[in-house]
Amino acid sequence: MALIVQKYGGSSVGSIDKIKKIAEKVKGYRDQGDQVVVVVSAMGGETDRLTELAGDLSGKPVPREMDVLLSTGEQVTIALLAMALQHIDCDARSFTGWQVPIVSDEYHSKARIEEIKEANLRAALDAGQVAVVAGFQGITSDGSISTLGRGGSDTTAVALAAALGTDECQIYTDVDGVYTTDPRVVPNARRLEKITFEEMLEMASLGSKVLQIRAVEFAGKYGVPLRVLSTFEEGPGTLITLEEYVEEPIISGIAFTKDESQLTVLGVPDRPGIAYAVLGPIGEANIEVDMILQNVSGDSSSDYTLTDFTFTVHKRDYEAAKEMLEKVAPEIGAREVAGTPNVCKVSLVGVGMRSHANVAARMFKVLADENVNIRMISTTEIKISIVVENKYLELAVRALHDEFDLDEEPKKVESELTPTDEQ
Amino acid sequence: MALIVQKYGGSSVGSIDKIKKIAEKVKGYRDQGDQVVVVVSAMGGETDRLTELAGDLSGKPVPREMDVLLSTGEQVTIALLAMALQHIDCDARSFTGWQVPIVSDEYHSKARIEEIKEANLRAALDAGQVAVVAGFQGITSDGSISTLGRGGSDTTAVALAAALGTDECQIYTDVDGVYTTDPRVVPNARRLEKITFEEMLEMASLGSKVLQIRAVEFAGKYGVPLRVLSTFEEGPGTLITLEEYVEEPIISGIAFTKDESQLTVLGVPDRPGIAYAVLGPIGEANIEVDMILQNVSGDSSSDYTLTDFTFTVHKRDYEAAKEMLEKVAPEIGAREVAGTPNVCKVSLVGVGMRSHANVAARMFKVLADENVNIRMISTTEIKISIVVENKYLELAVRALHDEFDLDEEPKKVESELTPTDEQ
Repeated sequence: MALIVQKYGGSSVGSIDKIKKIAEKVKGYRDQGDQVVVVVSAMGGETDRLTELAGDLSGKPVPREMDVLLSTGEQVTIALLAMALQHIDCDARSFTGWQVPIVSDEYHSKARIEEIKEANLRAALDAGQVAVVAGFQGITSDGSISTLGRGGSDTTAVALAAALGTDECQIYTDVDGVYTTDPRVVPNARRLEKITFEEMLEMASLGSKVLQIRAVEFAGKYGVPLRVLSTFEEGPGTLITLEEYVEEPIISGIAFTKDESQLTVLGVPDRPGIAYAVLGPIGEANIEVDMILQNVSGDSSSDYTLTDFTFTVHKRDYEAAKEMLEKVAPEIGAREVAGTPNVCKVSLVGVGMRSHANVAARMFKVLADENVNIRMISTTEIKISIVVENKYLELAVRALHDEFDLDEEPKKVESELTPTDEQ
Repeated sequence: MALIVQKYGGSSVGSIDKIKKIAEKVKGYRDQGDQVVVVVSAMGGETDRLTELAGDLSGKPVPREMDVLLSTGEQVTIALLAMALQHIDCDARSFTGWQVPIVSDEYHSKARIEEIKEANLRAALDAGQVAVVAGFQGITSDGSISTLGRGGSDTTAVALAAALGTDECQIYTDVDGVYTTDPRVVPNARRLEKITFEEMLEMASLGSKVLQIRAVEFAGKYGVPLRVLSTFEEGPGTLITLEEYVEEPIISGIAFTKDESQLTVLGVPDRPGIAYAVLGPIGEANIEVDMILQNVSGDSSSDYTLTDFTFTVHKRDYEAAKEMLEKVAPEIGAREVAGTPNVCKVSLVGVGMRSHANVAARMFKVLADENVNIRMISTTEIKISIVVENKYLELAVRALHDEFDLDEEPKKVESELTPTDEQ
């Protein structure tokens, strides 16, 4: 008997027929003796419908109330799935975030889970019930409904898996695994059998929308085996694992995202604490900053050494962040604030990169050959990211996918060491 | 400074524009210094949409999960109204049933309120916030979501008014008050300025859909002044009051309902406890029985005195009730069970009836003149109800409205005593 947490996203529960199919699938696990916790998202399109309702009020959405509104989406799904299960004689009980309870901090619309009290879930499981849990939502310590932000259902699933110490956390989606890059952009993108948490973190945070980053962080931190697989097709999916690779490709995949904006504070007098003066207010407003670069400024018309700060934020936060910087700039003696609202980020990801110094050089050469102008560069041990204008996205991703032969199965590392090797 | 509870029904909050208008209205009260608690229903059509979703699962809806599903309707409205209020600088906070909390018993889909803990609401009101409360829902002692049944938002409003000791409980609807009967059936039906709780109870329970019966019971029990008025038109509405009438009409109004079914158990050997044997199982299944009649049976082919039981239930409970009776009938030696699924009930209501013995006779004569066959008769001090086939409904109501001059303002009682009276 295993204890499994399964998560089904919005497109997997997008209609009554799909909900019935998921019920059959879940019952299959229950019938073979497993205890099953199912985490579900809102039915596809529902979150957008609710967001539009709030938008029609034509004011800035009030965060606390937006969470009250949006959390109804998942609540509808848990009720329907619990009913569908009971209709096929599979006892089930639905749980909203507050009924579990999943306790979060008070940052509405992007709350973080602080604690999961699992006694209620255990009681249901021990009574032979399937526990159907609303993803994406929690309850704050003052009793308000919170949401974990879009895609937060993944986080819910992983957090529950960690709290319950489950054998596997299965994330069901409309794709059959993690690919070397988005197959809509590169048709010969290839499904990966395994990927390390480290790589997956870089892939997820950079916009490969299969999994939400916080879910992968949680899973890595608590060592929860995570498997991404297709809801309606059979197949092994992609295992996200702590294990080292047997085969070791240089690059595992290419991640990208379009919804970024670039902001630069130019000509800042350089002194200790200046980075905090620039970025502190942004962080306090709970705006997530992604890439951060600091360069010596080209401007030298001052007694101070001058410096430039450049960073990226999500596009939705661009206006707010820009306003804040324009307030801060005169206070710290900066010359000006510049911004580009529409940029994208393209990243090569792979643990094999550690031992291959020339990856960056090959990347920049490919892009130069295609006349793609690079606006920012940032690197870690297993990732190289560049920021380019939106219009270059597809061109850049396809050229890089070709350059690193990502459509081909990686060669086995050990094969390089055998005498029969052809090299 | 007054403390007011207002309730807005589904058609009053049926669109974003309407929600904005209600926000303005509520702000008007707040700005003149009142503390306001607003109870809202689901947006018009939403409850039907959710019910259909559950229906598409093609199984019997599971009561606990239906409540999880349906309660999202009001949750959407409270979030939107709280946002609309904040957009016009009127501080507000939404409350689901469990956040108040409104504690109910465990009869899902027709739960009764057991306790309201008002500390959270008081805190919001004392902080200058409008409290926006989801109608129709509560929380059971084991932490499940419950609903009070359709129309239960009225009950929520009255229960809150009672718990908070408010000065007035205003029920806003799409009609401008309580009428002598349904104006869609009788075009010259007249709005009543006042009606007693006693009369209103009879009117509401018999299908005048302005107010839900439990709301009126609560209001009467706790002496909460209740006013029915129009959401989008100015006007005094109808006051539901404990006071005696100055004018005293014989009949105040005619109530009716179409969704009834009639069931009869024929030839039951009469002995003590037999009524319980027939009706006990129906009550235990939480099916509400309305009219109950017991006659000596026409059948005399037995050693026992035989008796017939006839009663009415809501149409949705007809099949379930009939099945139960067919199981019970052989056990108690009854001859047969008969039923008519489609009947309607028409009732004359008026406290003035007490002192006018000939009302029933006038009623029966009018119906005889129109060839309407009466299938059941039941009377109380202030009400005479008859059951007829559905097809006679409009004919019967119009004939009775005419006979008792309900389109005319009632004569003052004192005018009958003055010498100038023309009588």
